[in-house]
This record gives sequence, structure tokens and C-alpha cells, in this order.
Amino acid sequence: MTTESAVAQGPDVADLVIGVLGGTGDQGRGLARRLSMAGHQVIIGSRKAERAAAAAAELGGGLLSGVENREAAAAADVVIAAMPWEGHRDLLASLAEPLAGKVVIDCVNPMGFDSRGAYALRVPEGSAAEQAAAVLPDSTVVGAFHHVPAGLLLDPSVATVDMDVLVLGDVRVATDLVIAIVGEIPGMRGIYGGRLRNCGQVEALTANLVSINRRYSAHAGIRVTGV
Amino acid sequence: MTTESAVAQGPDVADLVIGVLGGTGDQGRGLARRLSMAGHQVIIGSRKAERAAAAAAELGGGLLSGVENREAAAAADVVIAAMPWEGHRDLLASLAEPLAGKVVIDCVNPMGFDSRGAYALRVPEGSAAEQAAAVLPDSTVVGAFHHVPAGLLLDPSVATVDMDVLVLGDVRVATDLVIAIVGEIPGMRGIYGGRLRNCGQVEALTANLVSINRRYSAHAGIRVTGV
Repeated sequence: MTTESAVAQGPDVADLVIGVLGGTGDQGRGLARRLSMAGHQVIIGSRKAERAAAAAAELGGGLLSGVENREAAAAADVVIAAMPWEGHRDLLASLAEPLAGKVVIDCVNPMGFDSRGAYALRVPEGSAAEQAAAVLPDSTVVGAFHHVPAGLLLDPSVATVDMDVLVLGDVRVATDLVIAIVGEIPGMRGIYGGRLRNCGQVEALTANLVSINRRYSAHAGIRVTGV
Repeated sequence: MTTESAVAQGPDVADLVIGVLGGTGDQGRGLARRLSMAGHQVIIGSRKAERAAAAAAELGGGLLSGVENREAAAAADVVIAAMPWEGHRDLLASLAEPLAGKVVIDCVNPMGFDSRGAYALRVPEGSAAEQAAAVLPDSTVVGAFHHVPAGLLLDPSVATVDMDVLVLGDVRVATDLVIAIVGEIPGMRGIYGGRLRNCGQVEALTANLVSINRRYSAHAGIRVTGV
């Protein structure tokens, strides 16, 4: 399904096949798990097909499968970029062709850690999402899922994930699509959070949530009040 | 009262005299109003004493008064920096002496606006709060109150302000003090949000809240879930 046909369905996103690139990390596996629970066919991508297949099996199989990143990018309708920041630019640039015409959801947080905790890395393009847009000129990049604690997504005892997801992008149909996908996960609400040029601070805020988690021994998330 | 004696009181901050520099703007007047309602003597500072006095009188007088910025800085125990970003560095630098030994709460959001809405400005020091710390070497700078919608603070029909305030700083006694001050405003909760080096994205997130307000016709704020 192309982006345009997905969008033509409006909020009915249930049939979308979702790929998760770099999907064997905590964030990727957590999102793969919750989206498959919501009824999506989810294809986990990794550098090695065996690792991706093992992650899918470990999460219970069913609607989940695992293949190489390129195959996941080609087979999915909508693709989540969940690779480590270090490999973000190169992996996406290498997949520009299979990702052309698709919505790419970037959830990568460029962060460093030292003895004083987490801190946001400066990104030349302004944000991971803007970097993705720069190397994927034929895709529509949307920023989302930055603050969702992987531990909650992967915890079988957590039935609802009590938080909002800020969804950022420059193309209204694409942000609406992602807001609809977010809303399929019980407890989660997608909120339009601004244009891609304002995604850097949303990514960077993850460093603050890490600080909050340390101080309060929490799995902190964000809700937007007044909306 | 010096910072040290204030801190020795722990969470009992009720006696603190609070100054609001550049306090005739919406954010400054809103905070002055709510903190005076909480029982604080609040001194609004401005470039011109008459403007400050007029703002205090317009807000109902009582515990509120208005004087020149320098006098407000000298007379207050804790000082909120609420001036426009354009004058931030110069005004604070000129007040380094009366602000020495005090906690300075910086709530300034460096933002620009164009036809596509609000966007975060790059700050050489990383954030307004870090800029404040650079020009106020003898003060203790804490970042807070960035996301509080002035419209709600100034609205007499709003009894409780339903949001969390992220409080950032490198000195635990100072962030604890500010968290206690935040907690005096009904509905508000102060949450430690990390070190000052992670304040830039908190300031910048205000641009996202502006985008949210436009899209949803809201007065958006933030709550931290899981804490």
C-alpha cells in the first residue's frame, strides 16, 4: 500500500503493514510488540535476518516476523526508524529507494551519556528526523514515539501505556496517519507537535526524561494538558 | 533572606520575597499574580518604575509592588528572570551584583516566529538558563516555568493550573527550593527535570506548545506521567 492509498483510508490504518528498521533494540521491539498486539502485521528489520527473526519469535511470533532491514523497508507500508543514532544516517541513506513514497516514522533520540547522566547531542541537520528527511528526499518523514519508555512497551503486565506521543511533520496527511497509528495502542494518544524543524527539542527532551527516571525511579512519559 | 537560610527552611518557602525581573510582560505578570495569591510578597521589576507599579496595581496591589529592575533584584530573596529574550543577557549581566548569592529562576524561552509559526532559536551557551549562569557567576540559576501559559495564570476564572513544571539546575538545594515554590500554586507540581545543560530543549519545547495551541485552539501544558 502506498502512502497515498493509506491516507485515503483516513483514520482506518488497521491494515497497514509496519516495518521497524533496527527493530531488535528495546524501543523497536517494544513498538513492534504493541503494534502487533493492535492487529498490525509487523516486520522487524535488522542487519542480520537471524537476529530479526529471533527478536520476532521471542516477542511471540504471530503477526511478527523478522528479516533484513532492506527487505523490511521494501515489504512494509509504513516504516519506523528505530536504529541506534550512530547508524541512523547511513542505514536510512542506503534504503532511500525501498523507502521512496512511504511514510517513515523516526523515533531516534541522539543522546550521549557521561558521569553526569544523559545529554542531548547537537545534530547538524537540527534533529534525527530532519537528517532522515535529508537523506530520504522521496519519503515523508514524521517524528514520533520519542518518549515512550521501552520498558513499559515490553512489560506484559502493562495493559495500557499512559502517555501522549508528540507527532511532528510538515505533511498533514502523514502526521494524521501517524496520530491514528499511535491511537491504536491502548492508553496512548497522538498529538500534533509541530513541524519537523521543531523536532530536535522533542528528541532531546528524552535526556530530561532519563534524568527524571533516575531521580524518581520512574518510567516517565509526557501528557499534554489542555488538549 | 539569603539562599542559604531559605534552603535551611527546607520546603517552607512561604516567607520568601519574590522578585520578577522584566515582570510587566504576560509571563511575568502571570507568575507574579499566582505567587502573590499564594501569599508571597512579590516585587515586579521593570526598566521604568512607573510601568512596574502600574502592572502591580492592575493585578490588584496587595502583596504586589513594582519598582525598577535593580531595586527588585536587591530587595527580593528569590528572583524570576522573565524579561524578553532580546534583553536577557544584558539585563542580567547588569544586575550580577544585587543577584549575587541568590537563586535566579530563569523562565525565558528563546523563540522566533515566521509565517510557519514558532521556532526555537539557537543559543550559543546552549540555553537561556546557561546564558544566565554564565553572566551571573555568583548566583544559582534554576530553569523553571517555561511552559506555563500566561493566559491561564492571568485568567481570574482559572482556580487551578493543571500542569507540571520542569525544574532544572545543578544545585540540589536550589532545585528543591524552586520545586517547593511551584507547589504553592494550586494544581501545579514541580518535577526535577535534569541539569542545566539539558535546559535548552525544555525552553525550545515552548515552540511545540505554540504549535499545539494553534492546531487545537488550546492552552497546552505538560504533565509528566509515571512520577
